[in-house]
Amino acid sequence: MNNTTEILLGLFVVYIAAQVGAEIAQRLKLPPVVGEIAAGVVVGSSVLGWIEITEPLEVLAEIGAVLLLFSVGLETRVDELKKVGRVATMVGVLGVILPFVMGAAWAIYSGYGAPQAMFVAAAFVATSAGITARVLQDMGVLNRTESRVILGAAVIDDILAMLLLGVVTALQSGSGVNIANLLLVLVQAVGFVAVIALIGTRIMRRSSPLLDVPINPLSPLTISLALCLGLAVAASYLGLAAIIGAFLAGMVAAETEQRHTLETQLRPITAFLVPFFFVVTGAKVDLAELGSISALVTLLVVTLLAITGKLFGCGLGALSLGRKSALIVGIGMVPRGEVGIIVASLGLQAGVFSSTVYATIIAMSLLTSIIAPPALQLFFAGKRKVVSP
Amino acid sequence: MNNTTEILLGLFVVYIAAQVGAEIAQRLKLPPVVGEIAAGVVVGSSVLGWIEITEPLEVLAEIGAVLLLFSVGLETRVDELKKVGRVATMVGVLGVILPFVMGAAWAIYSGYGAPQAMFVAAAFVATSAGITARVLQDMGVLNRTESRVILGAAVIDDILAMLLLGVVTALQSGSGVNIANLLLVLVQAVGFVAVIALIGTRIMRRSSPLLDVPINPLSPLTISLALCLGLAVAASYLGLAAIIGAFLAGMVAAETEQRHTLETQLRPITAFLVPFFFVVTGAKVDLAELGSISALVTLLVVTLLAITGKLFGCGLGALSLGRKSALIVGIGMVPRGEVGIIVASLGLQAGVFSSTVYATIIAMSLLTSIIAPPALQLFFAGKRKVVSP
Repeated sequence: MNNTTEILLGLFVVYIAAQVGAEIAQRLKLPPVVGEIAAGVVVGSSVLGWIEITEPLEVLAEIGAVLLLFSVGLETRVDELKKVGRVATMVGVLGVILPFVMGAAWAIYSGYGAPQAMFVAAAFVATSAGITARVLQDMGVLNRTESRVILGAAVIDDILAMLLLGVVTALQSGSGVNIANLLLVLVQAVGFVAVIALIGTRIMRRSSPLLDVPINPLSPLTISLALCLGLAVAASYLGLAAIIGAFLAGMVAAETEQRHTLETQLRPITAFLVPFFFVVTGAKVDLAELGSISALVTLLVVTLLAITGKLFGCGLGALSLGRKSALIVGIGMVPRGEVGIIVASLGLQAGVFSSTVYATIIAMSLLTSIIAPPALQLFFAGKRKVVSP
Repeated sequence: MNNTTEILLGLFVVYIAAQVGAEIAQRLKLPPVVGEIAAGVVVGSSVLGWIEITEPLEVLAEIGAVLLLFSVGLETRVDELKKVGRVATMVGVLGVILPFVMGAAWAIYSGYGAPQAMFVAAAFVATSAGITARVLQDMGVLNRTESRVILGAAVIDDILAMLLLGVVTALQSGSGVNIANLLLVLVQAVGFVAVIALIGTRIMRRSSPLLDVPINPLSPLTISLALCLGLAVAASYLGLAAIIGAFLAGMVAAETEQRHTLETQLRPITAFLVPFFFVVTGAKVDLAELGSISALVTLLVVTLLAITGKLFGCGLGALSLGRKSALIVGIGMVPRGEVGIIVASLGLQAGVFSSTVYATIIAMSLLTSIIAPPALQLFFAGKRKVVSP
């Protein structure tokens, strides 16, 4: 088999795995995303070994995540997000502090020195907006208050997590923390989000006609996709997750008159590319590293701490919405997904994590991502009967 | 800049280049595909050096080409193709023989030994179905007889080119030609095409309802994309171009009742991904290798031979359609595109081509791909006024 055949075969396997996984999950009344992640675990190196995570697959997964958050942004109005600004900030801040403290406590108890313990703790802080956003989108509840709080908090969470990662990396490498530098990074990130979300949306509201290039029948789509990729690059350049930029781009596009056309045109694209993100996420786990009883106990403890940290931290921040809504917000912030995996990879590279700790954090990221969606579906559906589309 | 930022930036540049190039081309009354290829040359290493051809970009380009030919197949009915079967076969066969003879003559005249000359000649034979298919699709003339002949001939051309490449590679490596093996390859390829085109379409005509999975509103699309990827892998595995498999998959899906829904759903996906194929094709040329007068003269001669070889070979095969139609078919088979580039790469790897010959073949592939589309548009529009969509 030559290279093209192999790469196409990999794409085919990932694509089929996603469809089969989603189908099975839906028949079991689980969110499709759980099926896609589980399918990734099955076709990945741990079980069947049918696919290898190559760079092209990683890039397709990243494009999938970017397009997913763009489509979620497209269903989010900035004015509605502003209304929940205060609650979302509380959720974001407390949802970083509590998991960090709990993670650090566990790491120190497990025998890590202070700088290493902070790195481990940073892996507890990461939140993946993608997984929760997908569940909320699939359930058709993106316009609910809890969903808005979760999305707003995810943006704040990402800014804080980026700063935290900067601090722990500096401490770990022994170079000391440069406060002025950190402040600059913070100002840039907050400035970027504020300018796009407040000024970008306002400009777009007045310039919808610009999206219609008469020569090109798909022009609202092609121009919006350029905006999506552009802001994803900008966010990534500032140290934020690329998906935050894509989400903001979606929010900007949501202010145009063509937003419904855009949603319709975007749906086939996300149907094709988003599953790559979830299958690749699932395929990254290495079950072999978790073969011993002690490793499994550690995984259980770490996962429980990771869940309770977000549940209580974020829930506390959202308590003003009532206890049931606070619980939903807390659950929505639980999945670590690809962000936990990224922090774990950094820790491995920096020599802080052993391969067992690395595998534990990856497995915890995955477990939280698989446990949270059904719980979210259960509590959201229980709170008010959702009409299926 | 970290890796993610760089890769996203590359995608952004390619995407923007494609849109700007297509827009400029259309304002100059040229086919958009010419603008996309030219934009690739501009942002590539030869001029601005804004993008580097990485493996993820190559894979995205391949996915773009596969989806393009799938969408072209979706507009092709197998019964209509069968009607032009004899003419298409003549076009395919003569369109291989004449360019091969002319290429070999030029190579021997230029001082190559016999086995090397045959390798050079093989680079004259390659035809890129993608470029012509895109022009025909953009013009809305895929249902014209000339278009059907071109598409049918492209399939036959690809089978013969694959066999030819097998022969010249074997001769070059000195291992001798295994006739039994070649026959097996031929039977497999023809069998694959025949089974899918004749039996696959018949089965699909009776099983359209299977495409509608009630749980998934996009199910005709997701299932068809699986078929597209699957047959692309199968074609590639048999040594054919992956796009031939995708084209056959499109033809199979064209027999279903949901073909119009599929066309609508596919359009946003191709609008996003197909431009990657053309920009990456353009970015592969290295103008620096063609800086001398003698190199330019060689390029001119090679390009003229490449054009006239296909024009007369294929035109002769299509003469029964009338001279004007034969000319259109001849022009439609001229672009060498990515297939010429692949043969050139193989020749470079095998040590047959110097870097100058390599650059010449690449530039010829590109020039034929840029010259043919406007000519095709001109003659097709001249033959009968085409209503713009």
